[in-house]
Amino acid sequence: MLHPHGAEAADPDLTRFLFAQPVMPSKAGPAPRNPATPGIWNWETPCMVTDRIKDFLRTTRSDEPFLVVDLDVVRDNFTRLARALPESRVFYAVKANPAPEILALLARLGSSFDAASLTEVEMVLAAGAGADRISFGNTIKKERDIECAYRLGVRMFAVDCPEEVEKVARVAPGSRVFCRILTDCEGAEWPLSRKFGCVPQMAISVLQHAHALGLEAHGVSFHVGSQQPDTNAWDRALADASAIFRSLADRGIHLKMVNLGGGFPARYLKDVPTSEDYGKAIFGALRRHFGNRLPETIIEPGRGLVGDAGVIRAEVVLVSRKSDEPDAARWVYLDIGKFGGLAETMDEAIRYPIRTPHDGERTMPCVIAGPTCDSADVLYEKTPYELPVSLSVGDEILIEATGAYTTTYAANGFNGFAPLKSYII
Amino acid sequence: MLHPHGAEAADPDLTRFLFAQPVMPSKAGPAPRNPATPGIWNWETPCMVTDRIKDFLRTTRSDEPFLVVDLDVVRDNFTRLARALPESRVFYAVKANPAPEILALLARLGSSFDAASLTEVEMVLAAGAGADRISFGNTIKKERDIECAYRLGVRMFAVDCPEEVEKVARVAPGSRVFCRILTDCEGAEWPLSRKFGCVPQMAISVLQHAHALGLEAHGVSFHVGSQQPDTNAWDRALADASAIFRSLADRGIHLKMVNLGGGFPARYLKDVPTSEDYGKAIFGALRRHFGNRLPETIIEPGRGLVGDAGVIRAEVVLVSRKSDEPDAARWVYLDIGKFGGLAETMDEAIRYPIRTPHDGERTMPCVIAGPTCDSADVLYEKTPYELPVSLSVGDEILIEATGAYTTTYAANGFNGFAPLKSYII
Repeated sequence: MLHPHGAEAADPDLTRFLFAQPVMPSKAGPAPRNPATPGIWNWETPCMVTDRIKDFLRTTRSDEPFLVVDLDVVRDNFTRLARALPESRVFYAVKANPAPEILALLARLGSSFDAASLTEVEMVLAAGAGADRISFGNTIKKERDIECAYRLGVRMFAVDCPEEVEKVARVAPGSRVFCRILTDCEGAEWPLSRKFGCVPQMAISVLQHAHALGLEAHGVSFHVGSQQPDTNAWDRALADASAIFRSLADRGIHLKMVNLGGGFPARYLKDVPTSEDYGKAIFGALRRHFGNRLPETIIEPGRGLVGDAGVIRAEVVLVSRKSDEPDAARWVYLDIGKFGGLAETMDEAIRYPIRTPHDGERTMPCVIAGPTCDSADVLYEKTPYELPVSLSVGDEILIEATGAYTTTYAANGFNGFAPLKSYII
Repeated sequence: MLHPHGAEAADPDLTRFLFAQPVMPSKAGPAPRNPATPGIWNWETPCMVTDRIKDFLRTTRSDEPFLVVDLDVVRDNFTRLARALPESRVFYAVKANPAPEILALLARLGSSFDAASLTEVEMVLAAGAGADRISFGNTIKKERDIECAYRLGVRMFAVDCPEEVEKVARVAPGSRVFCRILTDCEGAEWPLSRKFGCVPQMAISVLQHAHALGLEAHGVSFHVGSQQPDTNAWDRALADASAIFRSLADRGIHLKMVNLGGGFPARYLKDVPTSEDYGKAIFGALRRHFGNRLPETIIEPGRGLVGDAGVIRAEVVLVSRKSDEPDAARWVYLDIGKFGGLAETMDEAIRYPIRTPHDGERTMPCVIAGPTCDSADVLYEKTPYELPVSLSVGDEILIEATGAYTTTYAANGFNGFAPLKSYII
């Protein structure tokens, strides 16, 4: 099964991290039931909730679920990523979380931006970044949107076929284009669909066509599937990229850039050995295939910058069983589900850590579901989730590592529930 | 796989209808390419587009996709449904399409309403229906929402466990409750999950508990899975319901109502033999199990009232191939996809009829995808869709039978794309 958003797909490293989140026994003894008032969390267990978010939760009441994102975490993530990959230019994938405060922070920090639509281009400009820091990275664009982006100053566009090249040539003359190639996702835990990209052989003619139409054939992009455990996949993709570079060089067209895409794990900087392995593999492959003439590289992190910066506060609406049998499954219904921001639980792909006021008490496996009249709005059932037996109606819970792909995935009022509110602090 | 919204799930009868939509040869000859201006549709092929919608399309320009719903079709659907099932009270499932104009029309026509949330309750009241025509049909409700609904006059609530009964008893004293039971969806093409309902045996104690707490134990609801081909499924569910009626009658509690749920096919009134078969099976089963003491029945159509009343106008953004091989698949990218309102294409469950300006010309199988940077945003790939070879960038297309579950399923700005616009005419 594909992941709901493959372009920045589920991250098994994160998933493993989330699974591994230990439930530590509480020293404070049992927490009171039905807290109603915020601020009774047991913070002694390891968590990703920052002091700033804790303060915010202590003083914020809400009848509806909300997301709170700590900009300090985004800043730290960006700074560490930029330091860890000093040779690569960072293009933040705006779609992960387009909150104006996040865009403004990253603009101040010097980030560039990967925009999926004209609206995202405009949001980046409004946040204070120049158009020279924007890549219009969607291979599927209306010609009038390319034209508007060009008028706004954007000069870098993704393509994967001659038709898209022709649109860019018509309305954004002289711009740089990079061609996305399909890669063999074999081995990736979340292989992507074939929606984006063309076979490497075709990329040569696509970029040649761009050159012939007066565009700057700038480079190649690819995505090997998120958290590809087989480091050879990078090797194969970079081998393809370098073959395209060479083939075009023979025709007098000199590409400059390789776009390594997104999919970097949200916590990969903390899993130092693993990320070093990936880094080594990628840059080893770059050296192997490009020798001393290393291309410019860019990366497009989304989740990696904002995922662990956010926490959703939600509420238990109902706890019930389907029968009176003693072994009947326990169902916990929250006021947020697949349609309210947790779309990434599709196929139970991402397993968010959930913090309750009763952590440390005895747990049992629970099915977790959302509040809509939709039988598919079930978050975790195939692999039930261990939650405290004492969890009950009215309890507030925290869903951690939810800064990415939550507010924008939320449906526009399905069942009458408002889209997820968010606070950026 | 479950359908994205099982409570009113995909409708194989509709699907069959859509598949069967014949492509008739056009007498008008090839249509011009890249129409840009609306109004060049070939309406000679059978279609669900009404003259009012045709007029609207002729005079409406838009840079973005939009839905247009013809209220006359909604009126006809309601009238025929009410006539075909004179014994049943119709509760429109607001979640299918909560547009104020639709609610106001149905309110004027005398419909009742199935609300999934407090917001939907408020929308129905704003549309002019009294609270006595509202069922708060979600089994998962916050106590404060029940309380608000009660203050607004709502007196009918769905439950499926003692915990929910207790909430209703505390804040909506004396109200009617009906208990949803799990049914054996065996044989249903779209079986529902176990999210809603309890086993029939438990429903007895749930309703008894309601009675003991001063509520009116009003009835039983179920959903046999959408378009259940095995008419015995209705028989089994109604056998369960009547056993609950009898068991409670023995305890002096007299239930009055059976809620037959939703899932009625969008076009079932036109497929007369089939719908008669279903009607016969259902009412045969009612008589078989309830004898001469037939309970009140209610039905909760959503798609059945609004599905075929709506048409989405969209645009071809890109047509391309992934390689230069002659047998390479043809990809057609639209400006609407899974996140812009066509979520029901999940697992390719619903296959909407698509009308192009080139209908009648030679076709070839195409993969159809949406405009977002999301590799899962692919509408039809496992079973490619036959589309005219001459279809190209900029062509307007119509996606028919899209009046239900499109505007509300649309994501709240994913990739910067605005939620689906709609016009109710």
